[in-house]
Amino acid sequence: METDTYIIESRKMEVAPPRNGIREENQPKSPEAGAAESIGQRMQDFVRRLYPICRSITGKGVRQTLDIVSEMIPLDRYEIPTGTRVFDWEVPREWNIREAWIKNSRGEKIVDFANSNLHVLNYSAPVHKQVTLGELKEHLYTIPAQPELIPYRTAYYEEKWGFCISYNQQESLEDDTYEVFVDSTLEKGYMSFGEYFIPGETSDEVLISTHTCHPSLANDNLSGIAVAAFLARELSQKKHRHSYRFLFMPATIGAITWLSLNERRTKNIKYGLIASLLGRPGPFTYKRSRLGNADIDHVVETVLRSSHVAYEVRDFAPYGYDERQFCSPGFNLPVGCLTRTTWGEFPEYHTSADNLDLVSADTLQDSFAMYRKIFQMIEVNRRYLNMNPKCEPQLGKRGLYDDVGGDHKRQDVQTAILWVLNLSDGSHTTLDICEKSGLEYSVVDIAIRKLVESKLLIAL
Amino acid sequence: METDTYIIESRKMEVAPPRNGIREENQPKSPEAGAAESIGQRMQDFVRRLYPICRSITGKGVRQTLDIVSEMIPLDRYEIPTGTRVFDWEVPREWNIREAWIKNSRGEKIVDFANSNLHVLNYSAPVHKQVTLGELKEHLYTIPAQPELIPYRTAYYEEKWGFCISYNQQESLEDDTYEVFVDSTLEKGYMSFGEYFIPGETSDEVLISTHTCHPSLANDNLSGIAVAAFLARELSQKKHRHSYRFLFMPATIGAITWLSLNERRTKNIKYGLIASLLGRPGPFTYKRSRLGNADIDHVVETVLRSSHVAYEVRDFAPYGYDERQFCSPGFNLPVGCLTRTTWGEFPEYHTSADNLDLVSADTLQDSFAMYRKIFQMIEVNRRYLNMNPKCEPQLGKRGLYDDVGGDHKRQDVQTAILWVLNLSDGSHTTLDICEKSGLEYSVVDIAIRKLVESKLLIAL
Amino acid sequence: METDTYIIESRKMEVAPPRNGIREENQPKSPEAGAAESIGQRMQDFVRRLYPICRSITGKGVRQTLDIVSEMIPLDRYEIPTGTRVFDWEVPREWNIREAWIKNSRGEKIVDFANSNLHVLNYSAPVHKQVTLGELKEHLYTIPAQPELIPYRTAYYEEKWGFCISYNQQESLEDDTYEVFVDSTLEKGYMSFGEYFIPGETSDEVLISTHTCHPSLANDNLSGIAVAAFLARELSQKKHRHSYRFLFMPATIGAITWLSLNERRTKNIKYGLIASLLGRPGPFTYKRSRLGNADIDHVVETVLRSSHVAYEVRDFAPYGYDERQFCSPGFNLPVGCLTRTTWGEFPEYHTSADNLDLVSADTLQDSFAMYRKIFQMIEVNRRYLNMNPKCEPQLGKRGLYDDVGGDHKRQDVQTAILWVLNLSDGSHTTLDICEKSGLEYSVVDIAIRKLVESKLLIAL
Repeated sequence: METDTYIIESRKMEVAPPRNGIREENQPKSPEAGAAESIGQRMQDFVRRLYPICRSITGKGVRQTLDIVSEMIPLDRYEIPTGTRVFDWEVPREWNIREAWIKNSRGEKIVDFANSNLHVLNYSAPVHKQVTLGELKEHLYTIPAQPELIPYRTAYYEEKWGFCISYNQQESLEDDTYEVFVDSTLEKGYMSFGEYFIPGETSDEVLISTHTCHPSLANDNLSGIAVAAFLARELSQKKHRHSYRFLFMPATIGAITWLSLNERRTKNIKYGLIASLLGRPGPFTYKRSRLGNADIDHVVETVLRSSHVAYEVRDFAPYGYDERQFCSPGFNLPVGCLTRTTWGEFPEYHTSADNLDLVSADTLQDSFAMYRKIFQMIEVNRRYLNMNPKCEPQLGKRGLYDDVGGDHKRQDVQTAILWVLNLSDGSHTTLDICEKSGLEYSVVDIAIRKLVESKLLIAL
Repeated sequence: METDTYIIESRKMEVAPPRNGIREENQPKSPEAGAAESIGQRMQDFVRRLYPICRSITGKGVRQTLDIVSEMIPLDRYEIPTGTRVFDWEVPREWNIREAWIKNSRGEKIVDFANSNLHVLNYSAPVHKQVTLGELKEHLYTIPAQPELIPYRTAYYEEKWGFCISYNQQESLEDDTYEVFVDSTLEKGYMSFGEYFIPGETSDEVLISTHTCHPSLANDNLSGIAVAAFLARELSQKKHRHSYRFLFMPATIGAITWLSLNERRTKNIKYGLIASLLGRPGPFTYKRSRLGNADIDHVVETVLRSSHVAYEVRDFAPYGYDERQFCSPGFNLPVGCLTRTTWGEFPEYHTSADNLDLVSADTLQDSFAMYRKIFQMIEVNRRYLNMNPKCEPQLGKRGLYDDVGGDHKRQDVQTAILWVLNLSDGSHTTLDICEKSGLEYSVVDIAIRKLVESKLLIAL
Repeated sequence: METDTYIIESRKMEVAPPRNGIREENQPKSPEAGAAESIGQRMQDFVRRLYPICRSITGKGVRQTLDIVSEMIPLDRYEIPTGTRVFDWEVPREWNIREAWIKNSRGEKIVDFANSNLHVLNYSAPVHKQVTLGELKEHLYTIPAQPELIPYRTAYYEEKWGFCISYNQQESLEDDTYEVFVDSTLEKGYMSFGEYFIPGETSDEVLISTHTCHPSLANDNLSGIAVAAFLARELSQKKHRHSYRFLFMPATIGAITWLSLNERRTKNIKYGLIASLLGRPGPFTYKRSRLGNADIDHVVETVLRSSHVAYEVRDFAPYGYDERQFCSPGFNLPVGCLTRTTWGEFPEYHTSADNLDLVSADTLQDSFAMYRKIFQMIEVNRRYLNMNPKCEPQLGKRGLYDDVGGDHKRQDVQTAILWVLNLSDGSHTTLDICEKSGLEYSVVDIAIRKLVESKLLIAL
C-alpha cells in the first residue's frame, strides 16, 4: 500500500470504499509504483528538476519545462507565433536570456543571474553599459520589508531592463560606477504551451489548468505543474466517465490564447479547476467559479468539508489566476481555483524564499490526494432515476434488508437506501442526497450500488 | 359549553371568533353532546374498547376494530384478497390467532397470549412442540434495557414463530423442557381497511390517514384511530369547502394498496396528514411533506406557532409512517405527519408500557382540538381579490372605520383591513397576510368578513 | 464653496467626485447662489413663510402655499372641482375659514384661531352659538398626556365643529356659558395641487410626492415641501437622464386624484419617493416599496448605508403616507418613503410643538443632501455592456494601468476596472457591482468612466 493511501486513511477522509476495480485506479501502474518512494517524494523530485530553469511567458525555459512534463504524459505541444491575434491581445515576442550580471568598478560580479534567475527582471530587455549608482538604482527592485529576499518582478508589456536584489544588498552598494549586462533577446518567435486530453466515456469535460511562466519559484508554480502532471498520468491509466483536459500554459496570455483557439470546445467543460500553490503547507483555499453554484463549486466544497481539514471558501473575484479568463463574462465557465494558502497571502510569495525548502513531499501528496478525491466525486456525482417511484419497493424480497454488510452500520445503509429511492427523481444529484440526508458519501454510494444491482435504480 | 371549548380558550389559542353558524360546527350534534362527558373522555372510552383486540396487518382483529369505528361513522369497508398485486408488493396472507402459550414441564402456563397479545410475535407462524430452554430462547424477544417490559415485535414478511416476554422473565427461566403452542393461521384471505369520504363544496380534498395494524398498544395507534374517528364524525355534521377523506389502514401495505387502487384520485389531495401517537402527553411533532413548503406545511406550522404550545417541526425524511408512501417520488403529495412525541422517542414506544395508562382524556382532547384548528385554518386559507385595487377604497362611507366592535382593538381591525386590501391581489393567501402583517388570524378574519360584506373583496 | 457641500464632505459621505460639468449641477445657479446664506437657511426661511398659513385638504391656504412654491419653480397648478369622481372617492367641498374663537360670559376670547390655526378642528363646520361648559367639552380636543400642547385634529369626512386646546386650559375652564364662533365655509369649489415635471433624456421617471394639507406644523410637512421645492429647482438647472416629477398635493385625496387623472403615465415611474418629516433632527427612516426589492429600495438603502449616518429601513406596510395609494395592488409602483423619525414616533407629532423651533436649517440641508445623493445614484445606477467580453481586454495598451490618478488608490481603481468588466454583462447594475465587489461607488464610477472612454464599455 502506498503512503498516499495511508495518508487518506489516517485522516479518516470520507472516501468511498473501492468499487470493482476502482482501487486499482487509485494506485498508479507506473514503473515506480512498486518502489518504496511515495508519490509525494516523486513529485518533490520532479519539482527539483524543474526548479533551476528560467521560465517566462515565452522562451526556451518553458519548452524545457514541457519536455520534462512530457516524460510523464504524452503532451500535445503548441507553438503560437509572435504577433498572433488572440481576442484583444497578441502573442508577444519570445524572450531568451543567456547571462546577466552587475559588476562594480573593480570588475567583481556583485549580482549574477547564474546564482538566481530571479536577479533579472523577468522579460528584461538587453542592456550593456556603465551606470552610476544613482542610475542603477532606478533599475533595481527590492523588498524593504523583507530585506534579505530577492523579489520576483516582471516587465512583460513595456520594454525595460532591470535587476532584482535584496534590500540589504542595495543598501550596501557603494557610490561607484557599475557595469550592467543583460544578454537577453526579445525576438519574433513563439509562445509554447502543452495540453493533454484524456477522452472519457462521454464528451463532458473536466479542465485542469496550471501556469508555467514563473522562473525559480517552487510553490508558485512548480507545485501546480507537478500535481497536474501526476494527476494526469494517473487518470490516463483508467477509463472515466468524464474526459479530462490538462493545460500547462503561461498565465493570462496562455489562457487567452487557448480560449481563442478553442472557443467552440468550451461548451463541453462541465467542471474546471485552476491548480497552483499546492506544495506549501497551509489550508486549502477554494475560490468559487463566477457562477458561484456550479457543480464544481458543490463538489469541491463537499469534498473539503468531508475531509476534516482546515480550508477556506471564497466567492469569485476577477483577479487571481486564469479563472479571470475562463470566468470572463463572454465565457462564464464553471471553473474555480483550488490552492493551499493563496497568492499574496504567504510571506514567501514572489520572493526568493519560495524555494525548494518551502515545498514538502507530504504537502504535494496531500494536495494530490485532495484533487484525486475531487475527481472521484466528479465521477460519481450524477443523477439517478428510481424505477419504482410509486410507493416504496419491497426491499425484503430483494435481500436489501439483510445483505448490507460492509464497514457501515446496517442502519445507515438501510436509511441511505430509503433516501436514494426517495430523491432519485432525476433532479437530485448524489451530492444533493448526501446533503439532504446528512449521510456521508460512502454510505450513500453503497446504497446506490445495491439499488443499481437490484435494478431499482438507473443512472441518468 | 363543552370542556373542549373550554380548553381552547384557557390556552388562549388564537382561533377565530365564530362566523355566522360556524360555532355550531364546532359542537358535535351527537347523542352525547348534551352529556357532561367531554370529547376527551369519550375518546378515552373508545380507546379502552379497542385496546384488548389483537390486531395485525390482516385478520379479524382489524375487522373488529373497523366495526367499532363504524359505530361512529359510516365507513366504507374494503377487503382486498391475498395475492393482489399492489405496485411492487402483494397483499399478504390473512393471519388469525386463537391462543398461544408456553408451559413448563410442570404444565404451568408461564406465558399466555390471553394475558397480553404482545406475548406473541405478531404474525407468528403456528407451532406446537417441546423445546429445550436453549431452543426456546432463540424464539424469545426481550428488551434488556427495560427488563420489566414486554416488547412488541412483528414478523410480517418471513415466516417464523416467537414469543415476546420481559427480560426479567427470560432471565428467570429454569433449564427445563417447555411446550410452546401458537394456535395461529396464515391463509389466503383478505386485507381489510376502512375509508370515509365526506364530500365538500369542492373536490379539493383533505386526507387523514391512520394505521390500524398494531395490537394492544394504546398510544400507537388507538389514539390516532380515536382522534381520526371523532374528527370525521364532527366534520360529517357540517358543510365544508373541502372534501375530507379518512383512511383507517394497516401501515405500509395498506397505504400502498390504497394508492394503487386510487392513483387517479390523488390529484385532488390538496392537504394531507398522517395521524398517530396522539394520546400520550408530550409536545406536538410535525414532519413536513417532501415538498417542504406545501400549503399543509404552512397551515400546520402556523397553527402550531399560534397555539403557544411546545412543538417541533422537522423536515421530511423517508422513514416513519405512511408519509413514506404518499411522499414517494412518483406521488410526492402534500402530506405531512402530525404526532405528539414521535415514534422511537418515548420510552414506552413498542412495549407493554404503551398501555391504557399512557393515554389521557386531556391529551386526546388536546390533540383533537389541534387537528380541528388545522381543519379550520385549511377551510379559511384561501386567496381573495380586492375589487377596488387602484388606491384605497373610501372606508368611511362604508362604515368600516367605526363599526369594528368585537373583542379586538379597533386599531388592529383597522390595520387588518388595510393589509387585506393591499395583499388581496390573488396571489397571497390568508396565511400570507397574517405572516406579512404580523397580525393574528382572528383579526385578519374579521377584516376579511367585513370587506366581503362590503363587496370590496371576493374569495377566489 | 457652499455650506451644504461642506457638510457632505465633513461627514465623509461617499459621493462620487465630479464628472465633467457635474459639479455645477450640484451648485444651484439661483440668485442667492452667491450669497453667504446656505441652502439650509434658505429652506428654513421658506418654511417660516409657509408656517402661518392655515392649510387643509382644500381651500385658499393650499393655494397660497402653492403660490409660494411657484416662486421657486414653475408649478403646473390644477384645480379639481368638488364632486369629481376619483376611483372610489370624490373630491370634497372646499373649506375656508376667516376667524374662530371661544368667548366666556365676560366676552373674553379665551381661544382664538388668530393665535394658532391648530385651535380649530381642521375642516370644521361653521358654528355660532352659546353653549354650556358641558356642551363645549363635547367639541374640545386635548392631549391629556401632553397637557401643555394643542393637538392637530381633522374632521374631513363627517361634518362637525370643534376646537383643539391644551389639556391644561380645558381643565381650567370655569362652569360658564360660552360663545363659540367658527366662521368657516364648506362649499362647492376646488381641490388644488401643484405639479412640476422636468423632462430628462429619457421618459423614465423619478416621482417625488409631498403632502400640502397640514396647517401650521413645521416638520409635518413644511419640511417636506421645502426639500422637494429646493430639489426641484436644483434639478431644473441641469440635464438628467431621468425625467423628474414633483407633486405637491393634499394627502390621500390628492394622491388618489392624481393617480386617477394620470393612470396611463404611471408606467413611466421607475423610482418614487414620498418626502416628508425632513426638518426635525433624527435618524432617517426608509420604508420600502411594496415590491420590496425595487431599484428605489436598492438605491436608497445603498446611499443610506454608505453615508455612515444612523438610519432605519422598514418593510412596506399599508399605512403611512401616500405610498398607500402608489403601492395599492392595482398600481404597485416602486415608491418608497424617506423621512427622518417617522410619523407618530416623535413627541411633537401632530401637536403645537411641531413648530418652527423644531425644524433646523442644518437638518433641512442634511435631508436635502441625502435626497440629492439618492438622485445622483439613480442617475448613475444603470447597466453596462463589456464590449470585449471574452477574456480580459489588454488594459496596458490602453493606459488603464497607469493613468489612474485621482484621490483613490491606484490599486482600488485597478480592481474596480476588473470588476466592472467582469460584471458588465447587461444584467448587473452599478449598484450590483458595488455590492459584489465591496468597493465604494466613487471608485467604481472612476472605473466605469475610464472604460467608457476606452470604448471597452457602453451604457445600456
